[in-house]
Amino acid sequence: MWGFSLIDPGLGPLDQPQTRVAKSIWDFHGKMASSRHIKDVSFCGRPQCGVIGTAPSHELLQRWSEREGALNENHENHGVVCAQMPVENGVFVGQKLPENLLNKIKTEGARTKPAREHGGNIDAGSLTGGSRIYLPVYVPGANLSVGDLHFSQGDGEPTCAIEMAGIATLKCSVFPGGMEKLGLSCPIVVPSPAEPLYRQQLAFHGISVDKKGNQKRSDLTTSYIQAATHAMDYLQRFGYSHEQAYTLLATAPVETKVLAVPNIPTANVSVGIPTQIFNFNINPTPDGPSPKDRGSLAYLSEAREKAFQEARKGCSETPFDRP
Amino acid sequence: MWGFSLIDPGLGPLDQPQTRVAKSIWDFHGKMASSRHIKDVSFCGRPQCGVIGTAPSHELLQRWSEREGALNENHENHGVVCAQMPVENGVFVGQKLPENLLNKIKTEGARTKPAREHGGNIDAGSLTGGSRIYLPVYVPGANLSVGDLHFSQGDGEPTCAIEMAGIATLKCSVFPGGMEKLGLSCPIVVPSPAEPLYRQQLAFHGISVDKKGNQKRSDLTTSYIQAATHAMDYLQRFGYSHEQAYTLLATAPVETKVLAVPNIPTANVSVGIPTQIFNFNINPTPDGPSPKDRGSLAYLSEAREKAFQEARKGCSETPFDRP
Amino acid sequence: MWGFSLIDPGLGPLDQPQTRVAKSIWDFHGKMASSRHIKDVSFCGRPQCGVIGTAPSHELLQRWSEREGALNENHENHGVVCAQMPVENGVFVGQKLPENLLNKIKTEGARTKPAREHGGNIDAGSLTGGSRIYLPVYVPGANLSVGDLHFSQGDGEPTCAIEMAGIATLKCSVFPGGMEKLGLSCPIVVPSPAEPLYRQQLAFHGISVDKKGNQKRSDLTTSYIQAATHAMDYLQRFGYSHEQAYTLLATAPVETKVLAVPNIPTANVSVGIPTQIFNFNINPTPDGPSPKDRGSLAYLSEAREKAFQEARKGCSETPFDRP
Amino acid sequence: MWGFSLIDPGLGPLDQPQTRVAKSIWDFHGKMASSRHIKDVSFCGRPQCGVIGTAPSHELLQRWSEREGALNENHENHGVVCAQMPVENGVFVGQKLPENLLNKIKTEGARTKPAREHGGNIDAGSLTGGSRIYLPVYVPGANLSVGDLHFSQGDGEPTCAIEMAGIATLKCSVFPGGMEKLGLSCPIVVPSPAEPLYRQQLAFHGISVDKKGNQKRSDLTTSYIQAATHAMDYLQRFGYSHEQAYTLLATAPVETKVLAVPNIPTANVSVGIPTQIFNFNINPTPDGPSPKDRGSLAYLSEAREKAFQEARKGCSETPFDRP
Repeated sequence: MWGFSLIDPGLGPLDQPQTRVAKSIWDFHGKMASSRHIKDVSFCGRPQCGVIGTAPSHELLQRWSEREGALNENHENHGVVCAQMPVENGVFVGQKLPENLLNKIKTEGARTKPAREHGGNIDAGSLTGGSRIYLPVYVPGANLSVGDLHFSQGDGEPTCAIEMAGIATLKCSVFPGGMEKLGLSCPIVVPSPAEPLYRQQLAFHGISVDKKGNQKRSDLTTSYIQAATHAMDYLQRFGYSHEQAYTLLATAPVETKVLAVPNIPTANVSVGIPTQIFNFNINPTPDGPSPKDRGSLAYLSEAREKAFQEARKGCSETPFDRP
Repeated sequence: MWGFSLIDPGLGPLDQPQTRVAKSIWDFHGKMASSRHIKDVSFCGRPQCGVIGTAPSHELLQRWSEREGALNENHENHGVVCAQMPVENGVFVGQKLPENLLNKIKTEGARTKPAREHGGNIDAGSLTGGSRIYLPVYVPGANLSVGDLHFSQGDGEPTCAIEMAGIATLKCSVFPGGMEKLGLSCPIVVPSPAEPLYRQQLAFHGISVDKKGNQKRSDLTTSYIQAATHAMDYLQRFGYSHEQAYTLLATAPVETKVLAVPNIPTANVSVGIPTQIFNFNINPTPDGPSPKDRGSLAYLSEAREKAFQEARKGCSETPFDRP
Repeated sequence: MWGFSLIDPGLGPLDQPQTRVAKSIWDFHGKMASSRHIKDVSFCGRPQCGVIGTAPSHELLQRWSEREGALNENHENHGVVCAQMPVENGVFVGQKLPENLLNKIKTEGARTKPAREHGGNIDAGSLTGGSRIYLPVYVPGANLSVGDLHFSQGDGEPTCAIEMAGIATLKCSVFPGGMEKLGLSCPIVVPSPAEPLYRQQLAFHGISVDKKGNQKRSDLTTSYIQAATHAMDYLQRFGYSHEQAYTLLATAPVETKVLAVPNIPTANVSVGIPTQIFNFNINPTPDGPSPKDRGSLAYLSEAREKAFQEARKGCSETPFDRP
Repeated sequence: MWGFSLIDPGLGPLDQPQTRVAKSIWDFHGKMASSRHIKDVSFCGRPQCGVIGTAPSHELLQRWSEREGALNENHENHGVVCAQMPVENGVFVGQKLPENLLNKIKTEGARTKPAREHGGNIDAGSLTGGSRIYLPVYVPGANLSVGDLHFSQGDGEPTCAIEMAGIATLKCSVFPGGMEKLGLSCPIVVPSPAEPLYRQQLAFHGISVDKKGNQKRSDLTTSYIQAATHAMDYLQRFGYSHEQAYTLLATAPVETKVLAVPNIPTANVSVGIPTQIFNFNINPTPDGPSPKDRGSLAYLSEAREKAFQEARKGCSETPFDRP
């Protein structure tokens, strides 16, 4: 059994100018995962469905289109697409459908990304075997669907989790009138008693100051980026490449917490790296870390990398640069 | 032994138009806390210093003033103060100082809020007895200082934690050259093995859509507010007032996680309420919650509340309304 | 997916004169188990191999026969068989073997019970996916074998765990000279980070006093029986039958600890029942528990039960009555 | 703040012929403890009252004397005292009492050891701040008493825990008729959410075979001794002395579990040593452990040690040698 993770520069919150397209293959040994592309690390997975959700009503679907379209318009002058709107190409609906229905889907159907009220692409690490999710129901029959199976992911999942093939088995029941009774405006999750617990951590803090040194306004996204960049930098001091460290934050059982929101203008975040997953000591020592060969991710050929970077050149901003 | 928590409307991320000034007194029974103002709840504290940090260098202090001043300027037209700048009144320096030094502090000294590179007002729940923090050092002697003792706080701490009097005992050591060796751009924390662990939770999810229904751009702050509002609403269904629920999120051992950042344009957050702290069942049931008398926080007199609300009227926006 | 548990009176440490033959069927829903025969309980499994071990050398095998034979001789006058010796009937060796080899196995081969230096029937609840075991090697090739798959078991496992069909996947490696280097006189286990953790418990204490009120000499077995009987009695107050309570101790994620050995003449033990597995409140309350219909295990017909009890009549003592 | 631990040969279950009188001093740094006498170890304490209990009724007191006296009689021919009976010398009752009452106490009062139905010297590691204990009440007013403060102890506590001076604060309430309603034959404990959790362990297994190689009859005490001896031996391979290893098992947050009782004639036990408390890697490696200077406990002078050993010479058996 195996899975993979991927870095696709230009799309991730931790991208840096030098970030390259890179891939890692992960081998599963029962519940444990390790990668031939990242040495000296292995951890226990928490397999989950990255996507789980019910179908929206027509009215909700329309609200999505409106609010996401409005966001794109606001950011038009920044040259960044923030929300992926319905598209005519690349729609996978999996069945031979009547043409008028197919067209309706192409022009009105919501894209999988992002998470919305109905669940969707929530990528919640704790949604592993033994957990429970309460989902709103908007249409008769609910139309529950799942997908995007991950073997493991870190909280925050700054790039691709460990993607895998698999089968998900779910047990469903219905609470009539539940949305109203529970006030279910978004999913509620009960974590599993069997979610792996790595209690010993190094928690890297971040504040609402961006890479250029600008103070943002109580902005947890900026704080997350700062904390995660802090953690990546630390891991690189042991010999991991930028892309390896980036991948570890997205795949290992990293715990990312919102610490305190109201101390304006910083709302700080911590990114907790479990120390036990490394087969060497990553705790701070007076001598500091010493780098070692930690292997290498799989990269594109020089030519293909060049072409990729060329194509990106127009984008001066990513969706995560804060206005 | 006792402590208190407070809601000061106009300053907190979960404020609603009807939010009132309200106070709760918490009684400590060894490691456990309960409040005469919030029935049917008790939990284990994780006493910590909300403020811990070293002194900044002059250069760093200047950088703080510049970036925080710039933020205020950017938001001037919104009528909101985002960063508290040095002030002449209300400076507590605790010693008889020469006048020119005192003036320097008044005009150049940074305010305690927010957390910055040096630590400061980090309000990290996991910084309890048995934990360890690695702090940068900017001046000879480091000038470590601590304060703002909390008996307990939730992750995100949307309003005041349980404030208390107390004595903090710390053991310090120095890693010469540590900032450079460790790349210490912000604190790193090693949580305590004795941090209370409430594993059974209800985790309320939130997406980057604000109260008015507008999609924000991968904005964890908006997602936090949505998730926490979701949780508050749920607690109110059991009979807690808005202000009681607000207080519980800031004081109880709530676990707040960043789930997944890159699924643009939502970066979702979960607010996990430990179910074990209630002496009744708060899990979702087919019948839904039934409200009960859960006591009341201490409020201002009608006259004083009216005066307070009158004074707020000018503020159409809080620091947490996203532009 | 399903499994079963069984009570076989006369063999278990918690047997009472009225204990009847009884069976429960357990249904598995992903990682969770519940039984149609025990109402209001469900828990997360920790699937494991009850039997895992390497093959003994001829010398070790002989030592086993000697010491277990000697034990039986010492207890002959008590009319109790303590150790099961090699037998001619009922040997399952799974292959067509030459007659002389088959005879050798029948007369010299050790029975699966009990756990011995090589591992064997250790029934260690923490040996679930993601765990690791270090086993001694006595013969070339080690001859590792596994079996006796359990979906879940409690520490102490006073009667049958939840037995199931299944496939175990193991990854093996060899430490040359490891037995000597590590001093491996028995297995060493590294528990899995994904072992289910039920932290909230009711821990029932027991002392080294037997059912008849006799003080035993720092005897953890007596203390275990007392603590477990204490727990069974408590569960029965909520309406569970003696056999249901007995089964729960053997199947649910019960945590059984040795508290303190040297306070002669009692070495006390606690049996911790996780409170979260019940869908009602089992914590002590001033009003005390009130019984409710909790369903029933499957029993033998009256006639067969009578025959079974008749056959047991000769046995005035079980292997767990202390001399 | 500081505490101490002690080895008193002849009284402990892990004693070996070479075991010497030895002491360790432990320094407390907030919640953490380390010892100048045992290098490279530090751990988080779980302070508790080793002794907590209510007063027995006269009837219960008499039952204790009878059953403990009977035990001593049974073992008379082994030359071992198993139970400490009421004594005239060395009674500490702390108050100027009328002579006839004092005499009554001397001749009838139970000794602190062992744990009994009323609680007493239970040495339960999980009885730390935030925990709760339900105790039976036998006399009007209950006469609750506590003492024997420990900073930390391991499960099984084979020798002295870390003894300390201190103040215990308890909150008490009464359940009228609780003993009958709850069936309270011994204490019930609810562990604290703040009990330190060291999840990563090396769990050493032991079987019911004693040091001489004799098979005992499903004897958890023998299994505990074997497992703990296994663990001690392993620690010694890293350079710890026999007495240091012995002390660590009694003082560090060791987790000792009863695995499975009914696989006659062995009832196995595991002794789990937390790996995180060492500042070096104690996990098994292919090269095996290499010894290092780990300091030394404080021993008696040669002359005093000789005198002590001389005095012990008569005792061919300890209370833990199984008949």
